[in-house]
Amino acid sequence: MMDPFNDEYFMKQALVEARSAAEEGEVPVGAVIVCNNQIIARAHNQTERLNDPTAHAEMLAITAAVGVLGAKYLTGCSLYVTVEPCVMCAGAIGWSQLSKIVYGATDEKRGFQQYAPKALHPKATVKKGVLENECAEEMRKFFQRKR
Amino acid sequence: MMDPFNDEYFMKQALVEARSAAEEGEVPVGAVIVCNNQIIARAHNQTERLNDPTAHAEMLAITAAVGVLGAKYLTGCSLYVTVEPCVMCAGAIGWSQLSKIVYGATDEKRGFQQYAPKALHPKATVKKGVLENECAEEMRKFFQRKR
Repeated sequence: MMDPFNDEYFMKQALVEARSAAEEGEVPVGAVIVCNNQIIARAHNQTERLNDPTAHAEMLAITAAVGVLGAKYLTGCSLYVTVEPCVMCAGAIGWSQLSKIVYGATDEKRGFQQYAPKALHPKATVKKGVLENECAEEMRKFFQRKR
Repeated sequence: MMDPFNDEYFMKQALVEARSAAEEGEVPVGAVIVCNNQIIARAHNQTERLNDPTAHAEMLAITAAVGVLGAKYLTGCSLYVTVEPCVMCAGAIGWSQLSKIVYGATDEKRGFQQYAPKALHPKATVKKGVLENECAEEMRKFFQRKR
């Protein structure tokens, strides 16, 4: 039997968040955090609304997830995010000890893989390119409208 | 005439924050953000109290400072922090466009200079070692008590 709760399923949920961000005029990045096949936190970029350059989807999702679990660490949990995390978010992912990071589109300019490749917990696994085109398309459409 | 508001003065204020953290059982890191010789935000590590691995002194200070200024960027402002920022905080410092970063003690294990040397804004200046011994001593005392 096919597992309905696979990486694509959860990335689609992150994409729903990214589209909410776009509708609010925010850079369209969305994230969900999954624990035992359940989404325990979901968030999208809110740097404009909160007037805070640190209010990235991943940061908000991590803070929400530790609140839900009542634990300071997210060991065993997975993060799905539509765009490759930046250095700040990768650092936060490292501190939170998230075990699995799945992202869609690569961020050549700000992505952690280039600028802070050792930021994550050494045991964390990374999978990239899940629904890559859809994730990248949200970003492309957003910045095209901005021009 | 000597300028009373020099780097040591502001680092002493960051140290006051670090000591508050220690009293609360938090890892003793303190930070202040300065704009036109005025402290516009001050914070200390609150990862335990807030049960949030992202609640570092620098993150809280940046979020507070953008709130005070009503601006999303902290261009022209300076950050004083008792310990070298980690990768996450360096990323946040980069996004906030802080112009000057002054830190006391070096963090060999987690410091951004080793793990994300390009995280800051390219025009930002970095000064390290201000009141280094006092800043490092707070950390040493804290972890000695923990053992």
